Amino acid sequence: MIPKTQRRVVLASRPAGEPTEANFRIEDVATPEPQHGEVLVRLIYLSADPYMRGRMRDGASYAAPIKIGDVFGGGSVGEVVASKHPVFKVGDIVEDRMGWQEYAVSASPTMRRIDPAIAPISTANGVLGMPGMTAYFGLFDIGQPKAGETVVVSAASGAVGQVVGQLAKMAGCRVVGIAGGAKKCDFVRDDLGFDACVDYKAAGDLGAALKAACPNGIDVYFENVGGAVSDAVMLQLNTWSRVALCGAISQYNAEKPEMAPRLPGLFVGKRVTMRGFIVSDFAAKYEPARALMGEMVRSGKLKFREDIVSGLELAPKSFIGLLRGDNFGKLQIKVADEPAGLPHRR
Amino acid sequence: MIPKTQRRVVLASRPAGEPTEANFRIEDVATPEPQHGEVLVRLIYLSADPYMRGRMRDGASYAAPIKIGDVFGGGSVGEVVASKHPVFKVGDIVEDRMGWQEYAVSASPTMRRIDPAIAPISTANGVLGMPGMTAYFGLFDIGQPKAGETVVVSAASGAVGQVVGQLAKMAGCRVVGIAGGAKKCDFVRDDLGFDACVDYKAAGDLGAALKAACPNGIDVYFENVGGAVSDAVMLQLNTWSRVALCGAISQYNAEKPEMAPRLPGLFVGKRVTMRGFIVSDFAAKYEPARALMGEMVRSGKLKFREDIVSGLELAPKSFIGLLRGDNFGKLQIKVADEPAGLPHRR
Repeated sequence: MIPKTQRRVVLASRPAGEPTEANFRIEDVATPEPQHGEVLVRLIYLSADPYMRGRMRDGASYAAPIKIGDVFGGGSVGEVVASKHPVFKVGDIVEDRMGWQEYAVSASPTMRRIDPAIAPISTANGVLGMPGMTAYFGLFDIGQPKAGETVVVSAASGAVGQVVGQLAKMAGCRVVGIAGGAKKCDFVRDDLGFDACVDYKAAGDLGAALKAACPNGIDVYFENVGGAVSDAVMLQLNTWSRVALCGAISQYNAEKPEMAPRLPGLFVGKRVTMRGFIVSDFAAKYEPARALMGEMVRSGKLKFREDIVSGLELAPKSFIGLLRGDNFGKLQIKVADEPAGLPHRR
Repeated sequence: MIPKTQRRVVLASRPAGEPTEANFRIEDVATPEPQHGEVLVRLIYLSADPYMRGRMRDGASYAAPIKIGDVFGGGSVGEVVASKHPVFKVGDIVEDRMGWQEYAVSASPTMRRIDPAIAPISTANGVLGMPGMTAYFGLFDIGQPKAGETVVVSAASGAVGQVVGQLAKMAGCRVVGIAGGAKKCDFVRDDLGFDACVDYKAAGDLGAALKAACPNGIDVYFENVGGAVSDAVMLQLNTWSRVALCGAISQYNAEKPEMAPRLPGLFVGKRVTMRGFIVSDFAAKYEPARALMGEMVRSGKLKFREDIVSGLELAPKSFIGLLRGDNFGKLQIKVADEPAGLPHRR
């Protein structure tokens, strides 16, 4: 029962500052037909991620800009409903960069089959997808934590932050999250097992709050937010510390760089290493990491929280909220039911 | 003929902002006598280096603060004039951290004998001393230049910068210096062989001048100055570039951090690695590097320029000028004649 038309979210215009719903447009188009080597996927969970803000700009970003009128979004999880592909079969659950729409054809070499026995299939957009890989490689390859060190992660309840903190705990570190609001802080401390969480909205003197939470200073900072939170962390970095630059969500809507206290002088004596990275730099190493994390998720050792919004029409609004920190956990847009019979069906 | 008294420069008070001569005091004291295991050194060349500004502060710096009333300075080159030391003999030319004074006793394990056959002995404070080692390890271990890449170094005619640029040329890089004034720029380009030099005082639009000098962008930035020069460089960094943070002389007199455009967001997509270092981190590797550079200096392949001021009483003023960029080459204070008969005697 593949409908003749489907809905999709396209970029209508480029935002100045904070995006509005007027920057997006929902349109009806003919459902595409798979050609030789392609599959048709009925999308179920659409990923909404901070990096997509960069794709709304015309200028250079590490993610290619989306053209006006093109489908917005990035990774999606869905079910193969027609296949002219040698490997993927009807009924397979797959993940790929298929955007915010109800159906997509794909012959992408990056498409991967999801094992629904491990966890809810939405995790392929989250803890077992791009954000999980980001956390894993950003923490271990860039942050290089050692047992007994103190690891601080901002946006601690977010898609990446929640995984970073749990992995750092497993590595024997003291783990301090930074998040906005008591609910998020309680969650990362009580449910995820972080040692402490600083509520940046309530802390007042953020430096003092961080000092109290990090009595031995900070050895690894996993940076997701930038801005004033970042400034406060930088002042508490220990000698030989590492800063893994994953993102700076507080800056994404800025039209020009914010001003902040200069860092380089501070970093000399402390021998700080600050390094930017993008998850795809580690693509060649995804498979073993995903297998390890899949087993930890299956056994309950690695927890995850998702924030699932239902309805394609809510995607733009939810994404705008994500940039403000309104979400609580990995944001996804659910646009169709999961197939019957999945072990972790939701 | 060792005099009974000698002169030395002590720290009289801590500066607020730019130091003044009133922060220093020259005093006459009894010339010390070497005890068992010590040598008495008649100092000849006293080193004046930007990092000494950090030692004038009471607070934490990577170099321990100098106490009020204690001898100022750092490394010095001199002649052993009395010895109760098992290894060093009268007549040896040595280098060690002996401060700004006319005589010093030392049993320091870091004292080293200089071979006057290689080059003028003052080079033990410069190209073959701490600044030379800083350039070598900062460039190769932190900057990691590859042939064909573009290396930019600020304070290009300074003690460290002049060596960085020449080493980077030998490594097959395009080398662009940044210096203040036409004389310094002409020197690094025409005498040292840099490919280009940007005069930050005359450039007007520094970003445009850098772009013109670095048509393929910047792969390695060797940071000596911080401030607006640094801001301009950061915007031209290439993907996978490295920033070796050696110092930030433009900031040393600041009482609180200057504000600058935020970097971290920029560094994510570009995968910039920015790393602070201190030369002593590489102490275990000094000897082979010094041997290599000694040979290059001896053969004329590695050039050096020193700015030698005569008279202990000029040390404070010269150091204050160093922080403003008044020096041209490695600043040294000559306080006594070299022994007769040295091959490169000056």
